Amino acid sequence: MIPFYKDSLGLEYLGTEEVQTEKVRVGFFRIGESAIELLEPIDEESPIAKYIDKKGEGIHHIALEVDDIEQRLQSMKENGIPLIHEQPKQGAHESQIAFLHPKAANGVLFEMCQQKQED
Amino acid sequence: MIPFYKDSLGLEYLGTEEVQTEKVRVGFFRIGESAIELLEPIDEESPIAKYIDKKGEGIHHIALEVDDIEQRLQSMKENGIPLIHEQPKQGAHESQIAFLHPKAANGVLFEMCQQKQED
Repeated sequence: MIPFYKDSLGLEYLGTEEVQTEKVRVGFFRIGESAIELLEPIDEESPIAKYIDKKGEGIHHIALEVDDIEQRLQSMKENGIPLIHEQPKQGAHESQIAFLHPKAANGVLFEMCQQKQED
Repeated sequence: MIPFYKDSLGLEYLGTEEVQTEKVRVGFFRIGESAIELLEPIDEESPIAKYIDKKGEGIHHIALEVDDIEQRLQSMKENGIPLIHEQPKQGAHESQIAFLHPKAANGVLFEMCQQKQED
């Protein structure tokens, strides 16, 4: 799929990384201030492998960058937004991530992502 | 859903428009150089109504802005990329749009979109 995204869609390929906590290989493409990440499970226990088994391949989720993920999650919890992760966990590039429950947004899965703070 | 995207996710709401060709009401949110569009069918003959009946609510497609949609479609056709629309059709805000076939990208539905040329 990487050649399709690079050559046919013309997106800028930033490289590939394995995220051991999620057991996925991730291909990164930049588009404006956003990015498309291609996720490939590297283990059948990966949550992404289970998702593909259940629902097939396609668009998995939308991640939004936030400055203070703990405050965001707390605020959503207080407003009754259903969360998969009430506390952040580690994502790619040492980010902190948390998923909202898809019923929060009529079946759309959203991730909050706080990039690693540079010291 | 508009309050969730504005207040819980904190996205900038740009307004709502009806697109008669697709029989949908579209809510626009800006995020960086990208946008999230919420699609709601206004007629049961809308392609979006049929999609929701078949697959349920969720993420429908990813649109990429291009400068010359006809040249892009021609190039994809020559490279064997399967297309739903080989010729562009009218989208929101007088844009020209065309959809790739989802089998082009393992089940991810991509739209090419060329904005209206300002005279």
